[in-house]
Amino acid sequence: MSGESSQLPEFIFGSLSTPAGRLKQVCTDKLGLKHDGILPLDPKPQEAIRIQVRVGADLAVTSVTLYYTTDGSLPTWDGDNAAVVNLPLVRTELKWDTLQWGYLETWSGEIPGQDQGTHVQYLITAITTTGELIYCPYVDWQTIKSLAEVDQLKYDIKALQQQARLPSPQIFGFYVDLESIPSWLEEAVIYQIFVDRFAPDAGQSFFTPATRNGFYGGTLEGIISKLDYLKELGVNCLWLTPIFPSPSHHGYDPIAHDQIEPRLGKETDWDTLVTQAHQKGLRIILDYVVNHISNQHPAFIAAKTDANNPTYHWFRFQQWPDVYDCFFDVPGQPEINSDYPECRSYFIAHACQWLKRGADGFRLDYAHGVTHAFWSAFRAATRSIRADSITLGEITSTPDALRSYSGRMDGCLDFKLLELLRGFFAFETLSVSQFDQALEQHFAYFNSSLVLPSFLDNHDMNRFLWIVKGDRRKLKLAALCQFTLPGPPIIYYGTEIGLSQIATVGPLEESRLPMLWRHEEQDQQLLSFYRKLITFRRDNAKIWKQRQRLLIDNPQKIYGYVCGDYAVILNNSSKVIDLKFLNWTNAHLILSSDSANCWDDQRLTLQLQAFSGVIAIGK
Amino acid sequence: MSGESSQLPEFIFGSLSTPAGRLKQVCTDKLGLKHDGILPLDPKPQEAIRIQVRVGADLAVTSVTLYYTTDGSLPTWDGDNAAVVNLPLVRTELKWDTLQWGYLETWSGEIPGQDQGTHVQYLITAITTTGELIYCPYVDWQTIKSLAEVDQLKYDIKALQQQARLPSPQIFGFYVDLESIPSWLEEAVIYQIFVDRFAPDAGQSFFTPATRNGFYGGTLEGIISKLDYLKELGVNCLWLTPIFPSPSHHGYDPIAHDQIEPRLGKETDWDTLVTQAHQKGLRIILDYVVNHISNQHPAFIAAKTDANNPTYHWFRFQQWPDVYDCFFDVPGQPEINSDYPECRSYFIAHACQWLKRGADGFRLDYAHGVTHAFWSAFRAATRSIRADSITLGEITSTPDALRSYSGRMDGCLDFKLLELLRGFFAFETLSVSQFDQALEQHFAYFNSSLVLPSFLDNHDMNRFLWIVKGDRRKLKLAALCQFTLPGPPIIYYGTEIGLSQIATVGPLEESRLPMLWRHEEQDQQLLSFYRKLITFRRDNAKIWKQRQRLLIDNPQKIYGYVCGDYAVILNNSSKVIDLKFLNWTNAHLILSSDSANCWDDQRLTLQLQAFSGVIAIGK
Repeated sequence: MSGESSQLPEFIFGSLSTPAGRLKQVCTDKLGLKHDGILPLDPKPQEAIRIQVRVGADLAVTSVTLYYTTDGSLPTWDGDNAAVVNLPLVRTELKWDTLQWGYLETWSGEIPGQDQGTHVQYLITAITTTGELIYCPYVDWQTIKSLAEVDQLKYDIKALQQQARLPSPQIFGFYVDLESIPSWLEEAVIYQIFVDRFAPDAGQSFFTPATRNGFYGGTLEGIISKLDYLKELGVNCLWLTPIFPSPSHHGYDPIAHDQIEPRLGKETDWDTLVTQAHQKGLRIILDYVVNHISNQHPAFIAAKTDANNPTYHWFRFQQWPDVYDCFFDVPGQPEINSDYPECRSYFIAHACQWLKRGADGFRLDYAHGVTHAFWSAFRAATRSIRADSITLGEITSTPDALRSYSGRMDGCLDFKLLELLRGFFAFETLSVSQFDQALEQHFAYFNSSLVLPSFLDNHDMNRFLWIVKGDRRKLKLAALCQFTLPGPPIIYYGTEIGLSQIATVGPLEESRLPMLWRHEEQDQQLLSFYRKLITFRRDNAKIWKQRQRLLIDNPQKIYGYVCGDYAVILNNSSKVIDLKFLNWTNAHLILSSDSANCWDDQRLTLQLQAFSGVIAIGK
Repeated sequence: MSGESSQLPEFIFGSLSTPAGRLKQVCTDKLGLKHDGILPLDPKPQEAIRIQVRVGADLAVTSVTLYYTTDGSLPTWDGDNAAVVNLPLVRTELKWDTLQWGYLETWSGEIPGQDQGTHVQYLITAITTTGELIYCPYVDWQTIKSLAEVDQLKYDIKALQQQARLPSPQIFGFYVDLESIPSWLEEAVIYQIFVDRFAPDAGQSFFTPATRNGFYGGTLEGIISKLDYLKELGVNCLWLTPIFPSPSHHGYDPIAHDQIEPRLGKETDWDTLVTQAHQKGLRIILDYVVNHISNQHPAFIAAKTDANNPTYHWFRFQQWPDVYDCFFDVPGQPEINSDYPECRSYFIAHACQWLKRGADGFRLDYAHGVTHAFWSAFRAATRSIRADSITLGEITSTPDALRSYSGRMDGCLDFKLLELLRGFFAFETLSVSQFDQALEQHFAYFNSSLVLPSFLDNHDMNRFLWIVKGDRRKLKLAALCQFTLPGPPIIYYGTEIGLSQIATVGPLEESRLPMLWRHEEQDQQLLSFYRKLITFRRDNAKIWKQRQRLLIDNPQKIYGYVCGDYAVILNNSSKVIDLKFLNWTNAHLILSSDSANCWDDQRLTLQLQAFSGVIAIGK
């Protein structure tokens, strides 16, 4: 699939959503001194670990050195810590880069295999050809300044400035372990609940706030009251958007991490919810934000009041007290130095508390804003509390970025697949062969190192049903595909009953309308389809990774693939199509998104209505 | 060195001279099916050969197959030729590409090691996911059309269209041999003679044509008359611009390849020239153009007259007889299908003839317009005639493109080094450490696989002396550096006596003024410096590859490096600088670009005048 055909009219990848933004990231990434990651991505005990450092065309170095510890102490480069091992790296690759119009260097070295449970921590320094000592990651302020003058189009100057302000040297780290992904995650069907918009207390109605970002009054008690609905729907895992104290309707800017937001309920409501959900076979994962907090959080208030306060180091003040790095430039959401030891302890300790209080894991908001080392430490700590707890990162970035979290998280939300599903079924910007090829490559690229939950939409974008102008046929067709792909599917609340929007997403809130609970408001036919789909998926939990191409017909827009004994046949066109399968006898349809689809055993033909699909079995 | 600082105000790399052009090439190169080259680049007998094919994000294939022969017969894919070996390739790499916003695949396979002298020829096919058979290289016309509509900025549509018109399947090929680079090339000091502008017949004066692209009257007899001058200068190899019949003053559009252009002299003049030159220790290499010919060449006239003429296949007619692919869109220079067997034979046979008539090798014009397979065949054939003949490619492309000719040519003109030398010494867009780093990386990248002749200018760009506004100090300083780098230096005629221009290069001809022969017109001091430099270089022929960084001072613009026993110290600033070398005693200056430079053995200081340099020796 070429970049052009996937150029969706939406911004699910942030600055990476446009060709111009991609060029900026590619070029910006090649500057200065950068640690390109470890190989293997998830080292097992006694496996040697290759460390790679990239030197940009803008930088000239004569040596690169790695300083590491394996005893849990923080590494230093100045001889302070006797536990530090000093490993000189060597230049192992020299590569011409036409975009940078210069050579890029790779320097590498090998940390010997370590014992199970070892926490390897390291930092990297280099000496420039003019004798200067620099720390990785490094980007020269002078370079930034000159790039800002000549080439704003090619470089993300703001990102570079922010990188240059990060604490230095960065401490990298990973754990050597045999952790595997809990099997329940691979078999999950996840339901995303936007808490303020899902269900009010029993007997209450939603509020009608003045604006869409007001409070609608969803609560934990409301969720409790709908557990039977969810169990009947068939999902087995709930993802709750943030439930901690926060000034906003979404909760992604917490002011504390150890309590329930009072609007959403009492502390005991959580205990009741988690107990009852578990009794009904439903797990619960919490949305957890480490990248930033609310500016009303006591740690930030303290830092802003007194620069001598220890929490001052949790943040990056450009000009104390009023100018500081914040998430998407929103002053209400100061960003965190999550590797600062006290800060790291704070976030990890509170996460562990929630596991002790019954949570089954976390969806990690804007996880790529936090270091890899942090997530390794987070996973090690949370696993030690609950061996089957899970972590799912929200990484709105490229597949190679997602893959780099292997061994540090259990999975990542599959934004690339989201783009493909919307591109093929909603925007119709991909041909069948482009869609097929991208799926095949995508799943081959990740293999089994990370679980990649699939979704058609979420709270940050237009609902799928909205972009297909309410055409339920297309939603069902896309869902049929989603549920027959490898990753565990996520349903955004309300999708199953036809909840849509009343306007296109502008300031984000339009896709967060309150759930429809009145029987007559719900599309019962759609709901029934979703129930069948979920049941079928759960009854055949292990077959989705064995996909095989069956049928690609670009002009007719027919796509078919086989998983286990089942064939999935999708008609993404506006025409009724008759397909002949000469080698099928006694075939029958297991699940169909349109009741008029049928198999004719005499003529060996499958008739598919416009924008519909089937799961069939035949020999 | 970053792309920005090297963004020279000139177009020595053609479309690659601007960031926009580079982006286009990078993206365009990633489309379709492409053969990425062989590993090792220059296979020796019994060495297995890895073949790599890249599949772009715009293409979906289920298999890629290589068909090769080792008996000299042309490979086919349809079973016609029993000598063909069929080798299925396998997908060995899947790589995310952010610019293309998709995955790129590498498919690989291995041809077993072959005997000395084997000519391996192959073609590559693939089957798409929709069952279509395609040939490498491949780019889909539909893709080109859709890209042309959406993204002209990112893709070079014209290049894609031209690629799609090339004969298909392409026959790739290489020789397995132990050929090494003739040692005389590594020790050469080359003098480029633009024949029409160098010297008229003895006793004659240059003409004064109405325009700069008229004829000035330089001849072979003129060159003969100046052989003593050239010998005294000290060079040991002459490169003559094209001497075959041609309607133009430059000769790069020949109408025959077996004669001397009558304007330049008689056939016997060539014999006299080559005999006398050899007697004086001067070798001669000829400029040879295979990419295109003149539209007055009989082969083209025949093809244009009758589409059934065999030479029709030498060309690519888009619309016979008037629209055809031509060099830089100039209708007078139709491009050649140089792999068409009769066409290939023609060019190779004539080149061999010139070796038999005494030529020592060839400078290959616009060599990247012709296939790698052609140059392998060209080299094998020419070497069989003269074992010490050489080939030097003009490849105005990236270093990775140059390197891909290893084993197929003896060397490539070093355009990247040209850019660095002009950037550092003339345009002053590089810092000392940027210049040093780029040199170090550049020479390490090539290692010894290709000889890379160095030059400060040629007939297609402004003379160095013109861009430094006539400042001889800067020319001498740059030459001092040029002559102490690994590659054999080339001097463009007249540089040594201060020939410059009277206007900036526009339609290219401004840097081709006639040579100055009157003693008083010549800068004798500059000439004397060049003589010393050439002598010194030739007296120390083997030390230039062992460069070691000695001194980098960015603020003072001082650059120093060591080769063998010698230290080269360059002051690229407008200030007089005193440098202290505490560990030098009994040092002395071997060569200085400014007679005022001096070494003080008492104070251990080296005084360097503005824009000057020295070669020193000291312990």
